[in-house]
Amino acid sequence: MSGSKCTRLSGALVKQLLDSVDSVLFDCDGVIWRGDQAIPGAPQVINLLKENGKKVFFVTNNSSKTRKMYADKMSMLGFDVKEEEVFGTAYCSAMYLKTVCKLEGKVYLIGSNAMKQELEAVGIQQTGVGPDHISGKQADWANVPLDPEVKAVVVGFDEHFSYMKLNRALQYLTQQGCLFVGTNRDTRLPLEGGKAVPGTGCLLQAVETAAQRQAQTVGKPNHFMFDCVASQFGVDRDRCLMVGDRLDTDIMLGSNCGLKTLLTLTGVSTVADAEAHQKSGCAERQGMVPDYYVESIADLLPALQG
Amino acid sequence: MSGSKCTRLSGALVKQLLDSVDSVLFDCDGVIWRGDQAIPGAPQVINLLKENGKKVFFVTNNSSKTRKMYADKMSMLGFDVKEEEVFGTAYCSAMYLKTVCKLEGKVYLIGSNAMKQELEAVGIQQTGVGPDHISGKQADWANVPLDPEVKAVVVGFDEHFSYMKLNRALQYLTQQGCLFVGTNRDTRLPLEGGKAVPGTGCLLQAVETAAQRQAQTVGKPNHFMFDCVASQFGVDRDRCLMVGDRLDTDIMLGSNCGLKTLLTLTGVSTVADAEAHQKSGCAERQGMVPDYYVESIADLLPALQG
Repeated sequence: MSGSKCTRLSGALVKQLLDSVDSVLFDCDGVIWRGDQAIPGAPQVINLLKENGKKVFFVTNNSSKTRKMYADKMSMLGFDVKEEEVFGTAYCSAMYLKTVCKLEGKVYLIGSNAMKQELEAVGIQQTGVGPDHISGKQADWANVPLDPEVKAVVVGFDEHFSYMKLNRALQYLTQQGCLFVGTNRDTRLPLEGGKAVPGTGCLLQAVETAAQRQAQTVGKPNHFMFDCVASQFGVDRDRCLMVGDRLDTDIMLGSNCGLKTLLTLTGVSTVADAEAHQKSGCAERQGMVPDYYVESIADLLPALQG
Repeated sequence: MSGSKCTRLSGALVKQLLDSVDSVLFDCDGVIWRGDQAIPGAPQVINLLKENGKKVFFVTNNSSKTRKMYADKMSMLGFDVKEEEVFGTAYCSAMYLKTVCKLEGKVYLIGSNAMKQELEAVGIQQTGVGPDHISGKQADWANVPLDPEVKAVVVGFDEHFSYMKLNRALQYLTQQGCLFVGTNRDTRLPLEGGKAVPGTGCLLQAVETAAQRQAQTVGKPNHFMFDCVASQFGVDRDRCLMVGDRLDTDIMLGSNCGLKTLLTLTGVSTVADAEAHQKSGCAERQGMVPDYYVESIADLLPALQG
C-alpha cells in the first residue's frame, strides 16, 4: 500500500484496502446517512461488505438514540444491520459506567430518554429526564434537594438543558467521590444546508466550567468505543478500517486505536482540512490526517460488486 | 511605601495608603456585604471615606441588578451611596454597546430584567427576557424565526438559560456582523457556607462553544469598567485604590489599570492564593498579586476615625 497519507482511494487501491481488513467501523451521520436519508449507494455497500464476510459496526457519538432505535432506522433505510452491531454513546456510556467505573449508585442524568433506557438496560438507576425549570432564589438553588444515592453525573445531549440542571449537576459534582462522565464533545450537530444546532459539547463545557472539573468522555476520539466493539466481537486492530466524515472524532479515533482510516466527503470535513493538519507539522494534528479519502462510500461499490 | 507586594495593611500604613489616593473602587459581594448582610463596619468605612473627601465607587460583575437596585440595597444596609457611583455589568454592558460598539440594532439578550432595563435606559432595544422552552425538532431549531433587527448577542446571568436560548444565540451569531458581548466570566456565584451556584461564565462558555467565537467581556478584569468610572468622574489612576475579594477579577482589574490594589479576606480569595501567584514566577499571574491585604475593610476604620 502507499506509504503517504491522505491518498484518494480509487481503482485497484479500493480492493487492495478491503482485502487488507476483516472489520469496518462506520460513523453514521454524514457517512451512511444525512438526517433521514441514506447516502445513495450506502445500503448496498454495507450489505455487500457483510455478504463478502466482513464484520461491520457502527460507532456514533450521537446519544439521542438507543441501539434498537438505530437498528430500526437502518432497516427502514435498507441497511441489513443488527442491534448488536450498533455502538452509540447512549449505550457505550452505560457500558462505561458499568464496566470501567463499576458504578454502585444512581446517575444524575442530563440527557435523553434513550440514555435513560440504555442505563436501565444495564441495571443502572437514574434520576429521570425532561424539563427542570427554575424556581425560588439563589439560596434555594444552592440547597436544592439531592438524591443521596447519586454517585455520578452523566451529560449527553439534552434539549431540556436548563440553568436548574446545570445547578443540580454542580451540587452533585461538589460532593466527595461523585463521578463525572460525558457522552462526547461534539460542539454542533450539523444539519442540511450548512445549518447546525448546539451539540453536547456546549452543555458539557457549561457543566465543566461550573464544577471546575473535567469530565471523562466516552465518545470518539476516546478509544473506549473501539474497545467496546473489539471486546465483544474480537476485532483485530491491524485488520480494521474506520470510516468517518469528521477528522477530530472519527479519524482521530482510528489513529488513537491504530486502525486504517478513510475520510468520506459527504459530511463535515474536507480534504483541505486534512491537508492543513498534515502540513501543520504539529504531532497532535497528524492523528487527524486520514490514510485515504473518498467522495462518498458509494465509491467502494465497484470493488464489492466486481 | 513598601516595595514588596502582598503586604498586610495595618498600623500607620493604613493612613499612608489612604493619603496616597483620591478615589477608592470597591467590589460589592464579599467586600462590603455578603448576601443580604453588610460586612460589619463596612458602612462606616464607606461613609467616612466620603466624609474625608474621597471619591468612592462600586464596581461589580453581577449583572442581575440595575444601578438603582444596587443604590437602594446599599441605602437599606446603611451606606450613603448615589446611583451614579455604582457600576454593575448590567449598566456597563449597555454603555459598552452604546459607546464602544456604537450598536445600531437590537440585542438578543440572554440575561436578567435588570439588563433589559439598563439597555432600554440607554436607548437599546432587546428581544425580551424570561423562559424560552424547547419545542419541535432539530430542523425546527435550526430554522427558528430570527428578528432581522438583531445585531448583537449579549450574555449575562440568566436563571432561565435553556437549550433553546443557546440555540437562538448560535443562529444569530452565525449571521454576518453579529456582535457578541458577555457581561463577565465568573464561573460561580459564591453563597454562605461554602456553597455556590453556576455563574455567567458557564453560560458564556456554552454559547462560545456553540458559536465557535469568543465574546468580548465587559466585566472585571477587563479595563472597561474602570474606563467607565474614570471618564465620568475624572479619576487619576495613580491616586486610585481597587479593593476586592477576588484575585482573578478585582485585583487583576486593578493591575490591568495601574491602580493600587487591596485584597480583603471576607470573600473568595485567600492570602495563600495570592502567595501562590507571586511564587509561580509566571508573569501573567503577577497581576493577581495585590499590593496589600486586610482581614476585612473594617480594618480601615481606625485610620478614618483617628
